[in-house]
Amino acid sequence: MRRSKIEERTKQMAFLKNVWYCAGFSHELDDAKLLGRKLVGEHVLIYRTESGEAVAMSNVCPHRFAPLSEGHRYGDNVSCPYHGLEFNAEGQCVRNPNGDKGTLTDLKAPRVARLKSYPLEELWGILFIWMGKPEKADTSLIPDFSMTEERPGHRTVFGFHKLDAHYELAVDNLMDRTHVQFLHPRLNLGTDFRDDFERRYSTEQIGDEIWDYHCELNAPRMPLTAILWPEAPELMEYYFDVRWNAPGHMLLDAGSVAANTDRKIGSHTPGANMVTPIDEHSCYYFWNNCRDSNLDSAEADKGLQHGITDTFANEDGRMVAMCQEMMDGETDLLSMKPLLLPSDEAAVRARRVIARKLREEAEEEAREAADNGALEAAE
Amino acid sequence: MRRSKIEERTKQMAFLKNVWYCAGFSHELDDAKLLGRKLVGEHVLIYRTESGEAVAMSNVCPHRFAPLSEGHRYGDNVSCPYHGLEFNAEGQCVRNPNGDKGTLTDLKAPRVARLKSYPLEELWGILFIWMGKPEKADTSLIPDFSMTEERPGHRTVFGFHKLDAHYELAVDNLMDRTHVQFLHPRLNLGTDFRDDFERRYSTEQIGDEIWDYHCELNAPRMPLTAILWPEAPELMEYYFDVRWNAPGHMLLDAGSVAANTDRKIGSHTPGANMVTPIDEHSCYYFWNNCRDSNLDSAEADKGLQHGITDTFANEDGRMVAMCQEMMDGETDLLSMKPLLLPSDEAAVRARRVIARKLREEAEEEAREAADNGALEAAE
Amino acid sequence: MRRSKIEERTKQMAFLKNVWYCAGFSHELDDAKLLGRKLVGEHVLIYRTESGEAVAMSNVCPHRFAPLSEGHRYGDNVSCPYHGLEFNAEGQCVRNPNGDKGTLTDLKAPRVARLKSYPLEELWGILFIWMGKPEKADTSLIPDFSMTEERPGHRTVFGFHKLDAHYELAVDNLMDRTHVQFLHPRLNLGTDFRDDFERRYSTEQIGDEIWDYHCELNAPRMPLTAILWPEAPELMEYYFDVRWNAPGHMLLDAGSVAANTDRKIGSHTPGANMVTPIDEHSCYYFWNNCRDSNLDSAEADKGLQHGITDTFANEDGRMVAMCQEMMDGETDLLSMKPLLLPSDEAAVRARRVIARKLREEAEEEAREAADNGALEAAE
Ligand code: FES
Ligand code: FES
Ligand code: FES
Repeated sequence: MRRSKIEERTKQMAFLKNVWYCAGFSHELDDAKLLGRKLVGEHVLIYRTESGEAVAMSNVCPHRFAPLSEGHRYGDNVSCPYHGLEFNAEGQCVRNPNGDKGTLTDLKAPRVARLKSYPLEELWGILFIWMGKPEKADTSLIPDFSMTEERPGHRTVFGFHKLDAHYELAVDNLMDRTHVQFLHPRLNLGTDFRDDFERRYSTEQIGDEIWDYHCELNAPRMPLTAILWPEAPELMEYYFDVRWNAPGHMLLDAGSVAANTDRKIGSHTPGANMVTPIDEHSCYYFWNNCRDSNLDSAEADKGLQHGITDTFANEDGRMVAMCQEMMDGETDLLSMKPLLLPSDEAAVRARRVIARKLREEAEEEAREAADNGALEAAE
Repeated sequence: MRRSKIEERTKQMAFLKNVWYCAGFSHELDDAKLLGRKLVGEHVLIYRTESGEAVAMSNVCPHRFAPLSEGHRYGDNVSCPYHGLEFNAEGQCVRNPNGDKGTLTDLKAPRVARLKSYPLEELWGILFIWMGKPEKADTSLIPDFSMTEERPGHRTVFGFHKLDAHYELAVDNLMDRTHVQFLHPRLNLGTDFRDDFERRYSTEQIGDEIWDYHCELNAPRMPLTAILWPEAPELMEYYFDVRWNAPGHMLLDAGSVAANTDRKIGSHTPGANMVTPIDEHSCYYFWNNCRDSNLDSAEADKGLQHGITDTFANEDGRMVAMCQEMMDGETDLLSMKPLLLPSDEAAVRARRVIARKLREEAEEEAREAADNGALEAAE
Repeated sequence: MRRSKIEERTKQMAFLKNVWYCAGFSHELDDAKLLGRKLVGEHVLIYRTESGEAVAMSNVCPHRFAPLSEGHRYGDNVSCPYHGLEFNAEGQCVRNPNGDKGTLTDLKAPRVARLKSYPLEELWGILFIWMGKPEKADTSLIPDFSMTEERPGHRTVFGFHKLDAHYELAVDNLMDRTHVQFLHPRLNLGTDFRDDFERRYSTEQIGDEIWDYHCELNAPRMPLTAILWPEAPELMEYYFDVRWNAPGHMLLDAGSVAANTDRKIGSHTPGANMVTPIDEHSCYYFWNNCRDSNLDSAEADKGLQHGITDTFANEDGRMVAMCQEMMDGETDLLSMKPLLLPSDEAAVRARRVIARKLREEAEEEAREAADNGALEAAE
């Protein structure tokens, strides 16, 4: 009986809660902006306080449910766009401009009103939000994306997209390198995909972290290599290594280097690829790309920015949305018994980690509920 | 058991039936127009007969459910746009052009076919429709909007909007004056809203009628006052008194008058503000505005017409639709346990009257069903 | 108990399965095209092999559900647009370009992967698909549309539309001739529809085939007759005879001939009118029109093509979509108790045949399930 209850609970919880999700980028909070974003089924408000701290809280005013992101800022406070309730950076209501004395100067506020506030961490230009119980938020669980931060000798470009598909379809896409030759012919070597220089790939799981390695050896130089590394030789090694952490954090450690070297000579372009559910049928895909070559080239900036944006909007994003549509409303891929290919190993391992973690969360919740029951009975 | 059945019935009936709703304006029936409108979940056809009477009936042809409002008029009859069944102003089918003799001249009509007809009253340029049992329609229950009728010394402008929100969210909006300074900065005094001249407000309930009084005393003249009353002094009193009757009838009795007078010197602009549900997720907002000053000014006509339209489309309508969206599909606001503020008194009283009336309708229906059962058993 | 189970099954099966549906036209498969189309709730891929045979299979890749119609052809094989799995014309997976040896030349394919394949017949330029059990597909059940085929002395034009309505509403529309004068005033005689020359109509049912006869005797020549038959006399006979076969196949046998002849002198324009469900709320309407007069006239081609397209898009299609909308989401017309008119005889007979066939399919399935159970028990 216990078991079936946990299974039911697991099913209800469509998304992991006690994990970090990407909520966007630091630069999105410039100019005192109030950023409203639906993440993991919840409406979230994010902004930067005057002291520079990024904070996150519910974007839903408890009065009549107006989106606070449409309101105004007064210092670190946000006033609701509808009737002006004012909340501080902890989400506490601190002012009701329409108090019961009938004048605007009445500062009496409903002290009981408090917005749900979310742990928010800002690292390497990326915003990470914790959607579960705040007391469980542990910043050591944030995957390392330091190698994608803009710093001397490195230049980073950014972007994000809304995809009309369940977030796991987007993770599948990013964990898989075999689609490149079919879905992205322009990114391919400009040769027929049946061509046949050496490729190597392998998958490795270390705890709950999954690595998918892929490289092309002794491959001819691609046209777009010239943008990143004008001095590239004719014989190249291209590598794309993907590191996954639950639920949707992928480091895409990629580079174009001289063939038969130790990968040090060439252009390195690691990027953070982070997928965050909006709801059961859509998700955000946040990405950055940090290069260590041709840094001051506006052409390289633009080429990467437009190239990645275009690829996602018209190729990957379009494809995962089409797959979602062919699924006729179903969001649980595995329930549709898909064919498993050897190349799916990384994606399937990721799905298994997510499934196990969902189960663990359900068990934990059941245990806590039981403990609370015991506590209450004892009192 | 009786109780739970009534509660169930109350829940099923999302909208009050035995009340008058605004269906539109008299001028919408000009030029023999067939007006098709979805009101309180039902498709309604409204038109004016040749003798001048406005009539309402189902807009759904009983044959294949074509919208009769797309058809043609022959005198007081309406013919269906699809196969030409003709209905008279009582909704009775009077002609089937495709009779069983196989010629067009066969006038045999299915006498059994009769459209549901609705009591419709036309008062002060406004159309009021009764969605409940016709025998219960009592015109004395129509709230008085005579003060908004165009007549010598008075000029009235009109408009309506479709709002993507449950009608009670629109009633909340109209019953609340505190949002003006936040949502309508242009309508405000052009000053920072923290400014601080005297405001007074109070709420009063007389039976099921609710009054919400609001005035600004010794306030500086607003820019837009000049349009209505070019001779306005520098020190003004602005009043906005709202009278509410179930389910969505609001008289907005407003004016701009000289400060410290008996409100007689100045410009008076009462308006009818009437909200009618379309379905659970949308509603119509009908409004008029009747002024007693600057009557012949096309600028005043246009200023009011455009100003009110613009305010509703871009400010109130946009806001209630955003709130509805933040509620993620929920339409029953109270089930979401909103924060109650002192300024909500009028809106909350209105919701309570609606809730009680819904319960009364459910009880009445249960009683009638029981009586009918007893009657049948006796026969 | 058996009975109620069959009724439940009948209800679940919204559409007949063991029948032929129109899937499109032969010319849609020109230029090696991969045609993806949703038919009777299933995603179907149709194409022509190099030997000229038209084949149909599931359009959903079993790997990640990408639409194969977005992929590429290699001879008679189709490769998935996402990860390149290749399927042959029987739907068998024959190649995985991303095999487990890690190179592109690995041809190992998951032999277990096989797309559902559908019997497809190509007759008279029309594609017919069988959505039920393949072993039951019997080509003798395809209704005869040979008279609509382009051949010496005959010229055929084609078209199709997507209608936002349940397919039976479209069948109703096509089985009914009485709407012409109301919905298509341009197709009428340019006279007031109350005019009164002789019309005759009758309905006949032969087994499960229904004929609806309609003609106008001694009618004045219509303007559009001149396009088809420039030498037409002033006194005409117009006939429209509709033959229906389940579920949505209608031969519209129409012509404009000299009055009081044996129908041999004049212009004959039989057409296939075929309605295929997409899902519960939409359908395809496929049509052709084959004339035996004025064959080389580009004006006649264009007039028919544009005229029929325009009529369906703006008149019939618009009307059935409006009716569907007035039904507020209900798709089962009869459950809404529509008024029946004498002119509905043909359409009602068609609905009764469909309902009986749905019941028969449910019974057959129940019987087969029972037999299988007995078989399994015996083993
Ligand atoms: S909705 Fe925010 S203060 Fe009213
Ligand atoms: S739908 Fe109105 S007459 Fe047929
Ligand atoms: S979805 Fe078709 S091969 Fe992967």
